[in-house]
Amino acid sequence: MKSNVLIIGAGGVAHVVAHKCAQNNALLGDIHIASRTPGKCQAIIESVHTRGSLQRPGVLRAHALDAMDVAATEALIRATEARIVINVGSAFLNMSVLQACLRTGAAYVDTAIHEEPDRICETPPWYANHEWKRREACAAAGVTAILGAGFDPGVVNAYARLACDDYFDRVDSIDIVDINAGRHDRYFATNFDPEVNFREFTGTVWSWQGRQWTASRMFEYRKEWDLPVVGRQTAYLTGHDELHSLSQHLDVPDIRFWMGFSEHYINVFTVLRNLGMLSEQPVRTAEGQEVVPLKVLKAVLPDPASLAPAYTGKTCIGNVVRGERDGKERRIFIYNICDHEKSYREIGSQAISYTAGVPAAAAALLIARGIWDVRRMVNVEQLPPRPFLALMAGMGLKTWVRENGRDVPLAAQAAPADA
Amino acid sequence: MKSNVLIIGAGGVAHVVAHKCAQNNALLGDIHIASRTPGKCQAIIESVHTRGSLQRPGVLRAHALDAMDVAATEALIRATEARIVINVGSAFLNMSVLQACLRTGAAYVDTAIHEEPDRICETPPWYANHEWKRREACAAAGVTAILGAGFDPGVVNAYARLACDDYFDRVDSIDIVDINAGRHDRYFATNFDPEVNFREFTGTVWSWQGRQWTASRMFEYRKEWDLPVVGRQTAYLTGHDELHSLSQHLDVPDIRFWMGFSEHYINVFTVLRNLGMLSEQPVRTAEGQEVVPLKVLKAVLPDPASLAPAYTGKTCIGNVVRGERDGKERRIFIYNICDHEKSYREIGSQAISYTAGVPAAAAALLIARGIWDVRRMVNVEQLPPRPFLALMAGMGLKTWVRENGRDVPLAAQAAPADA
Repeated sequence: MKSNVLIIGAGGVAHVVAHKCAQNNALLGDIHIASRTPGKCQAIIESVHTRGSLQRPGVLRAHALDAMDVAATEALIRATEARIVINVGSAFLNMSVLQACLRTGAAYVDTAIHEEPDRICETPPWYANHEWKRREACAAAGVTAILGAGFDPGVVNAYARLACDDYFDRVDSIDIVDINAGRHDRYFATNFDPEVNFREFTGTVWSWQGRQWTASRMFEYRKEWDLPVVGRQTAYLTGHDELHSLSQHLDVPDIRFWMGFSEHYINVFTVLRNLGMLSEQPVRTAEGQEVVPLKVLKAVLPDPASLAPAYTGKTCIGNVVRGERDGKERRIFIYNICDHEKSYREIGSQAISYTAGVPAAAAALLIARGIWDVRRMVNVEQLPPRPFLALMAGMGLKTWVRENGRDVPLAAQAAPADA
Repeated sequence: MKSNVLIIGAGGVAHVVAHKCAQNNALLGDIHIASRTPGKCQAIIESVHTRGSLQRPGVLRAHALDAMDVAATEALIRATEARIVINVGSAFLNMSVLQACLRTGAAYVDTAIHEEPDRICETPPWYANHEWKRREACAAAGVTAILGAGFDPGVVNAYARLACDDYFDRVDSIDIVDINAGRHDRYFATNFDPEVNFREFTGTVWSWQGRQWTASRMFEYRKEWDLPVVGRQTAYLTGHDELHSLSQHLDVPDIRFWMGFSEHYINVFTVLRNLGMLSEQPVRTAEGQEVVPLKVLKAVLPDPASLAPAYTGKTCIGNVVRGERDGKERRIFIYNICDHEKSYREIGSQAISYTAGVPAAAAALLIARGIWDVRRMVNVEQLPPRPFLALMAGMGLKTWVRENGRDVPLAAQAAPADA
């Protein structure tokens, strides 16, 4: 039976999801892309055709949709007979799209936590403020909802689960490290929508330390990491989605997230924040025009998609896990390296979009195959990680494990004794 | 005979001019203030009354005026019987206001060179592009027009003339140094209207070197100066109005302008310029709104007038002059020190506005007294400097001369041998 997939959103991640679904349309069936701006969906469809991404001839169609409108989304799910909805639109849409899935029985996949436009940095755990309130409804309706199935959150949640299951008797800490060691040709740019990107860093930094939530300020804590391929990199303690589910689902006292920022990024960010240019609250010009500074900033900054052709270098994202095995201390780093240029050559995307989009498409495939079709709401660490990681290795995202200075591909490793 | 004065503009400099004219209204007569926003004129008038700045009871009146409208300005000059117009409005108004003076015979004073909104950094000498085209008309009509009678341009032009006349047989170089060593309580602010302020630094830097115009980039050349009161300060070669007249009127091979900028200022400026936030060209937001980034930046930045209450520290502006006297090398520094807090206590202004406004009021007084009523168009260096500097010493701006490490007030000095 064909699943039929409805992709919601038409940005950089949707572009990747569409290509990866197209490369697997024998299993996934019809592919539909919906956004407020159907022209952007159409551009993705043209790109899929141009690059010959379709596994076999099949339906690939653009739709105009305001996904805040639950009834309209429900109608589109029914009209397209989509059994899987991949929500890679704005983070403001999650709850509406999830509701439409609950009404239709379609499976739901997303890659980022729900946000309300006027609230930045709510009380942890963030999922409990929105998505988890629908857990019982999903279970009652037998609806599969996989939350946060991008790279981070997503793949790093699977890494965390894998470490706990296969590498450690006891895990003491998980440090998720996200480094983009790529270079583009612009003075400054965000890797995705500036409006959403900057919001990540303007609130309180929440970390899970000593089995409790601890608050700090952005750029308050920094640490240098010596990483494969990208070398020594400075990263900063940052609040991030996955901490909010991992802290609840895994028995690990310390779970932290570290994001790499260049001095240049931090400087530009600091200037803009202090001037008030990152504000989502409107100001009035001397001429009486009312404008939101963050939206004007977005207008002068490069479109992140425009960076892809000139992007060089690699990303390195993974989990530093410490704990005990057979009575001995152990430390491993489970990670992926993604190459901006290679991603662009394959499907016209930079590595940031690529690493976020491939896992979402992989999750859809695992649902279609029944392996992850769990008929309830889960975060990725609640699912078996090996099928996910094995599938992605063939889709462009290979997992490696570094231990004692040696880097070994996950698939090539001997199965752990207790696996 | 009363002169009656019409002040055009209602910003920080107009505030100072109004107070200083009020302190001398026995000679100047009625004082009128006109701007597009009469409420701002009214606020200045209230401040004059509150602080008791009027020398004696007299007329002090606000008017609504679009000074781009020559006929309206002409009518207001006639209605107020103003014999002196002090133009301290936007730099875009000069040519219109000058035209109204030509039609009415009123004397004209301004403090900055004319600018066209869409042209930044025209061909030197800048005055020749606009004001000097009316030289013959002024002479024919017997209209006094004193261009650039603020501090810089203005007082520094008088310093240059004084040096050439009284201190040197031959002047080799004049370096005008403008340092604001003040501190306010905001993260970042411009000292006057951000829109105009930033325009000063986004074009080519023109300097007069080796008797010709040389072009450089902003922040390309820096130099550390050891100055009275404010100490060691770094300043950057900057284009500025006064070079464009001094180079034509004085026989000096090198005339340069140096403006002090903190590393912090340069950093913020550089980020904003590189992002495109200093652009006067409109951009379109994702929501379709058309906005000028520079106007939005102005809206988020502090109103310069709001800085005054918390401003501490001093400005130091003056001319380093090198040359020969009696066969020997000579180097002097003619300068003023102005205190932000003292200016605020006296009339509610910070020192940047104070140093720009006092000279314009002094020029008006010298016209009223007939000393500077030359019935033609001149720049300040074409006028006798000593009456101007002596008058200002009593109005809050004292001139000092440093030579061989000794600082002496100009007035206290023995008259030079050939004076």
